[in-house]
Amino acid sequence: MNRSIALLAPLCLGLGLTLPVFAQEDEFQTVITPAFSPVTWERLINAEDEPENWMMYSGTLDSQRYSRLDQIDKSNVAELEMKWSYQIPVIDRAETVPTVVDGIMFITEAPSNLTAVDARTGRVYWRYDHELPDDLRICCGRNNRGVAILGETLFMSTLDAHLVAIDARTGNVLWDTEVADYEAGYSKTAAPLIVKDKVVTGIAGGEFGIRGFIDAYDPASGELEWRTYAIPGSGEPGNDSWSGDSWKTGGAATWLTGSYDPDLNLIYWGTGNPGPDWNGDVRLGDNLYSDSALALDGDTGEIAWHFQFTPHDVHDYDSIQVPILADIEYQGSTRKVMMWANRNAFFYTIDRVTGEFLEGDAYASQTWAQGLDPNGRPIRVPGMAPTYEGILVSPPIVGATNWYSPGYSQQTGLFYVTSFDGEQEFFKRDEDYEEGERFTGGGGRYNQPMDAFHSSIRAINPATAQIEWEFPIMPRSSAGITTTAGGIVFTGSADGYFFALDAATGEELWHISLGARVHAAPMTYAVDGKQFVTIASGNVVYTFGLKDN
Amino acid sequence: MNRSIALLAPLCLGLGLTLPVFAQEDEFQTVITPAFSPVTWERLINAEDEPENWMMYSGTLDSQRYSRLDQIDKSNVAELEMKWSYQIPVIDRAETVPTVVDGIMFITEAPSNLTAVDARTGRVYWRYDHELPDDLRICCGRNNRGVAILGETLFMSTLDAHLVAIDARTGNVLWDTEVADYEAGYSKTAAPLIVKDKVVTGIAGGEFGIRGFIDAYDPASGELEWRTYAIPGSGEPGNDSWSGDSWKTGGAATWLTGSYDPDLNLIYWGTGNPGPDWNGDVRLGDNLYSDSALALDGDTGEIAWHFQFTPHDVHDYDSIQVPILADIEYQGSTRKVMMWANRNAFFYTIDRVTGEFLEGDAYASQTWAQGLDPNGRPIRVPGMAPTYEGILVSPPIVGATNWYSPGYSQQTGLFYVTSFDGEQEFFKRDEDYEEGERFTGGGGRYNQPMDAFHSSIRAINPATAQIEWEFPIMPRSSAGITTTAGGIVFTGSADGYFFALDAATGEELWHISLGARVHAAPMTYAVDGKQFVTIASGNVVYTFGLKDN
Repeated sequence: MNRSIALLAPLCLGLGLTLPVFAQEDEFQTVITPAFSPVTWERLINAEDEPENWMMYSGTLDSQRYSRLDQIDKSNVAELEMKWSYQIPVIDRAETVPTVVDGIMFITEAPSNLTAVDARTGRVYWRYDHELPDDLRICCGRNNRGVAILGETLFMSTLDAHLVAIDARTGNVLWDTEVADYEAGYSKTAAPLIVKDKVVTGIAGGEFGIRGFIDAYDPASGELEWRTYAIPGSGEPGNDSWSGDSWKTGGAATWLTGSYDPDLNLIYWGTGNPGPDWNGDVRLGDNLYSDSALALDGDTGEIAWHFQFTPHDVHDYDSIQVPILADIEYQGSTRKVMMWANRNAFFYTIDRVTGEFLEGDAYASQTWAQGLDPNGRPIRVPGMAPTYEGILVSPPIVGATNWYSPGYSQQTGLFYVTSFDGEQEFFKRDEDYEEGERFTGGGGRYNQPMDAFHSSIRAINPATAQIEWEFPIMPRSSAGITTTAGGIVFTGSADGYFFALDAATGEELWHISLGARVHAAPMTYAVDGKQFVTIASGNVVYTFGLKDN
Repeated sequence: MNRSIALLAPLCLGLGLTLPVFAQEDEFQTVITPAFSPVTWERLINAEDEPENWMMYSGTLDSQRYSRLDQIDKSNVAELEMKWSYQIPVIDRAETVPTVVDGIMFITEAPSNLTAVDARTGRVYWRYDHELPDDLRICCGRNNRGVAILGETLFMSTLDAHLVAIDARTGNVLWDTEVADYEAGYSKTAAPLIVKDKVVTGIAGGEFGIRGFIDAYDPASGELEWRTYAIPGSGEPGNDSWSGDSWKTGGAATWLTGSYDPDLNLIYWGTGNPGPDWNGDVRLGDNLYSDSALALDGDTGEIAWHFQFTPHDVHDYDSIQVPILADIEYQGSTRKVMMWANRNAFFYTIDRVTGEFLEGDAYASQTWAQGLDPNGRPIRVPGMAPTYEGILVSPPIVGATNWYSPGYSQQTGLFYVTSFDGEQEFFKRDEDYEEGERFTGGGGRYNQPMDAFHSSIRAINPATAQIEWEFPIMPRSSAGITTTAGGIVFTGSADGYFFALDAATGEELWHISLGARVHAAPMTYAVDGKQFVTIASGNVVYTFGLKDN
């Protein structure tokens, strides 16, 4: 279950040196990471102040993915060169965003493994292999998106719906908690979020008729501290937004990572599609809190407010995007907002204190709604629900965007999102729920080749919800975004490019071909005063730096 | 069986462009390579004169792996940076050496696939997937080492012991010939060698009691032109070097790629271990022509001479190394020689006209022979044959070197080899031959951790068989070597480094960490006047060039 391994060892340079030599393929040797300062909650709150580290999935608690590092800037980004690569020994979708603390990088790997490497060189310290059962219920790929860290402990989700705590120095397991029963369709792929003294984490399985929830665990013991269901139980407010017993298998998975505002003590977390995805006939009503943003009390998990993007969704428009928090100038005053480019093709600016809808507009092609009403509720185009025969709707099931991280730049005040302009034929079917089986009530098919469509990086002004610039990329992209104080937007493409854009104009500044799809988001860090940028492509994690560094 | 695919497409740069977009994961589109000049036999003979291309496994017919390209030299090699990477979508041992013709690169992939990419960018033109049966007999990994090209046709070995001809422009199969019956233990992994108007190719399966041979095929039809068995048949000279019927299952596989001298019209090809590997009791005698170099007539395949490195081998000391041909100054005159660093830990300089032994000495740790006699035959240390209980012998089964390509520099006159100083306990067992089953008669075990040993790059003077310099690398390396007119030796290491040494001194000039074992040999080429160096590491093919190129 846990094994420490040194796949990669220092090269013995020069004649006659007798450095320690390392493992053949089937031999392993424990290597402990160098000492690092424990990652206190204080450090996490102020993560922006130590941009040399990337201490959580979205970089900072506000999930802006904006780094203050500016050594790599618009003037020199074209000189970036690969400093090292690390090859994940399993090919699957690498959706990992590494975490870096004091020169040590933690990389999650398909299916549910974790490796610590030297962030300067990519050389491996240890690997944790999580043993998995053979009969997993996975909707969309065997992957893992990242870890959380608190103190000297890493927290990782696993595909069998466990949360494991791992000693960041050694790779040894400290505890392993079953969050939910994988045989009932639950799984976990997202990085947890540290909130004060708790590990907050969601659950996947929206295509298996689960009932979504957000949990908080004691980092020392792995004991559950609180659980907030994303679907209100019988007798609770909102439960009547589900016809009959449909709430019990209503999905609303919470399968990505949320954000946190320490001043408001509110956790922001998205919820997924109602289940079954494409047949809404069996779950009449708004289906709260599917396809919603939830604001939860940071101590109790109690829901402070909710904002439902797509009431009674029948198109699989999960709202599990990462909420980006920022204080922006809005109509003459500074406003604490949450920005959200939704899978449903609308962008929203929401007051994150109250949940009040401020601005919203479509940022990608869509045919399902006439627009948003003054409360941000979509005004439906009639007759766009899936039929038995199939009906053409935009955006398609994969969405105008999806789980891949958007970014926000404090320099430009713009919000950046990988968006897709596509369409698909949606159809429904009748389907009975059976525990642990897929429960989707339909599906989709493309009636044009995918190359009829393309993606774009779009920069949106959150004060107006209008697009400032766009950079088209082909084909449909599923890469996340990182912005820096160097004035750069870093992202990738499905056809294997990693590239840098001018955050102000969208002008392309640099690109390199890595040879396999970029599913992940970039991140940036520094060691010994040298800035690096890291991206996973295919099964490889590449790190770039400036020539002279 | 054959599908053309564009995994990677040009990035659409800038606003509003409508370049063609490409495939989602499950969609494919045929892309044809740009035109290139057909690779005539004349071009292959003079391959050295067009160093911008790398038109066969070992670069040139003499297999020196010496390139006249000198844009990358000792003064600037430290500025190398990755220009692109291409990810082979299957993880196995990538032992591929790409072929480059006029800016198009052909990459063989595990298990038996082939992809054409743009050598400037790594972008895919097409892929050929060879369908394989489920019950392959493979001793040592599902890999493929490279292709041969003649005209506009590529020739590739496959694990099911076929030879396939593929249209280099489209990836379409032209013919597919069964060379031998994989169910009887035959397989193929090596790049064929073009000799005039024939495709010359060997066979693998030495651990399955096969009978090795070297074949020549008609490139147009795939018809067998001649077959020369590496074990003489009943009544033929040499057959009496096998007791009883043991020659019928005697191995002597021919599982790597040979060399050719156009002036002498001789093909040079190595043969593997006699079978069963470790129990010689059942095959008394010298076991000709196992563990030998064979010189074959280029038109008929007739054996002109042979040189057996290890008579009656009981340690699996395959002699399938690539023969390097050069004309060297030897004792006051120019001599046409063949140089050979053998798995058995001895280096040999042999007159390639006659097969006469000129020089030889141990180049790595060994305990099995007291030395070589004046004819180059080993003088055995008594009692070193494997026993039922096990006996410690050096080199171990993996050898002092193995299949990975050595190199030779025309500038330094030195021969370069990745060598290993190790030891292992060898044991034998009684085993009956059964068709298609392993037939090895024993095995080996390490009684020290592998990190008690290490590899070195050794530079050997072929006129004296003495080591001029060495560069230690850890742990045991299985990377090949390429030398250039820039005065550089390029090679890699098991712990994922790709690096450059000064060919004259062994001084380390540059290295980069690629994150997975280098099993392959580098190669170099140029496009549009820019020199590149390519190496496979893990499942990734990396191409490096100078900053300003």
